[in-house]
Amino acid sequence: MDQSKLYENILNKRSFLCVGLDSEIEKIPAFLLEENDPQFEFNKRIIDATHKYSVAYKPNVAFYECYGAEGWRSLKSTVSYIKSNYPDMFVIADAKRGDIGNSSKMYAKAFLEDMSFDAVTVAPYMGEDSVAPFLSYDDKWVALLALTSNKGADDFQYHNENGIRLYERVLTLSQKWGTINNMMYVVGATRIEMLKDIRKIAPDHFLLVPGVGAQGGSLEDVARYGMNNKCGLLVNSSRGIIFADNTENFDKVAGEKAGEIQLEMEKYLSEKRLI
Amino acid sequence: MDQSKLYENILNKRSFLCVGLDSEIEKIPAFLLEENDPQFEFNKRIIDATHKYSVAYKPNVAFYECYGAEGWRSLKSTVSYIKSNYPDMFVIADAKRGDIGNSSKMYAKAFLEDMSFDAVTVAPYMGEDSVAPFLSYDDKWVALLALTSNKGADDFQYHNENGIRLYERVLTLSQKWGTINNMMYVVGATRIEMLKDIRKIAPDHFLLVPGVGAQGGSLEDVARYGMNNKCGLLVNSSRGIIFADNTENFDKVAGEKAGEIQLEMEKYLSEKRLI
Repeated sequence: MDQSKLYENILNKRSFLCVGLDSEIEKIPAFLLEENDPQFEFNKRIIDATHKYSVAYKPNVAFYECYGAEGWRSLKSTVSYIKSNYPDMFVIADAKRGDIGNSSKMYAKAFLEDMSFDAVTVAPYMGEDSVAPFLSYDDKWVALLALTSNKGADDFQYHNENGIRLYERVLTLSQKWGTINNMMYVVGATRIEMLKDIRKIAPDHFLLVPGVGAQGGSLEDVARYGMNNKCGLLVNSSRGIIFADNTENFDKVAGEKAGEIQLEMEKYLSEKRLI
Repeated sequence: MDQSKLYENILNKRSFLCVGLDSEIEKIPAFLLEENDPQFEFNKRIIDATHKYSVAYKPNVAFYECYGAEGWRSLKSTVSYIKSNYPDMFVIADAKRGDIGNSSKMYAKAFLEDMSFDAVTVAPYMGEDSVAPFLSYDDKWVALLALTSNKGADDFQYHNENGIRLYERVLTLSQKWGTINNMMYVVGATRIEMLKDIRKIAPDHFLLVPGVGAQGGSLEDVARYGMNNKCGLLVNSSRGIIFADNTENFDKVAGEKAGEIQLEMEKYLSEKRLI
């Protein structure tokens, strides 16, 4: 999927919502534990209930990997299910990978080839040759960590060389490695005061924005400071949608929550005169 | 395992060799492909042939993850095999993980709890709260990326604020998060000119040093500039040992290669008067 197609999907859905599938088994409704693959069953119902309101899904790989080979199978089933039933959906492996070239190549193969994800989140610390293997697939993307939403982002991401912070160097340098059609940036919604500056450095790239809702970021601010003339935003919400209810109605409630966010997003798209 | 125990093992084996299990199925001897779990069978024979000469093993998780759930099972079998048969061995998951707190907690659970690894390699970009969950287990370690061996290390790791490079900030700040008993640093053998400076910042910590051999680093230089009075080094070799031969004798040849390195390491330990 290239940038135009992603934008087209956003216009069609009037939404730039990414639903985070942080589907910890300990937190899913108890009645699902009787299913053969509870984690996949949970995801399937969440996806069926929310797909009308979202353009992307983002399974957090940590919450699958922690269940070993079985978790890995649930993750694979989840991506396959989305791709079979909702082929226009953009699916991101939130894996935060990144290693020397031949290792990154294997991670890229795992996520982009064998599991058909559209994108992988990648950590930039090891530099170009750790990111490049993920960029070697047509129509696949890297979502590169720039400024993250957590407290620890302060520790290194603001490291400042002659007025250029580390995350700014990541944004600048990495634009030479990829294009607006295969590179997007992770920018936490809790760093709203930086979004304006980030848009100066990367005006045309898509930003993947976690941290709205449970982590405290405001969707209105993200839209105000982050939206460009092709929307340029995928805003992720996880717990606020998928764990909004813990009964047999969990999927219905998740759909309602996603619908509320979609309505708000429609408003911002309209204010920006994109729809 | 704490630092004293690791040092004791080094003295007993007269070796600070870590064998890297980058066991790509495409590169293992063809006759093993008839086995039920070729990757595990390969590792088992490599381990049996090299354990006398090494104190640590380091499976590179990328080379298991790329085979999906099956690869994950081979990885788990490998750690279990080492822990059952050679309980003093230090086993490192070379996973380069690191995410916001609750996700890192899940990665830590996967590697340190469910799979009984002694250590995980972690990328520092997201700061303290992304590393801390890995430090919450007794006798388990983080091997934090400081200065890596690849070309891309130049892109961000030297980002310089008032004379302090990013990797130096990583070394300094992270010493507040862990101790010499649960934190070691990844320093590439190709960055030998920096080892002296790194030892000024982290004189007592263990360093995990990849990049000797295939990647071009010299063991002699690593020992000269990196060894401290508790050795303080785990030097990794992967391809030079495990893929030294591709016939039915591959394990015997791997053992010989590991033995040669052990002899060289014994010489450096002796020159430093540690044995």
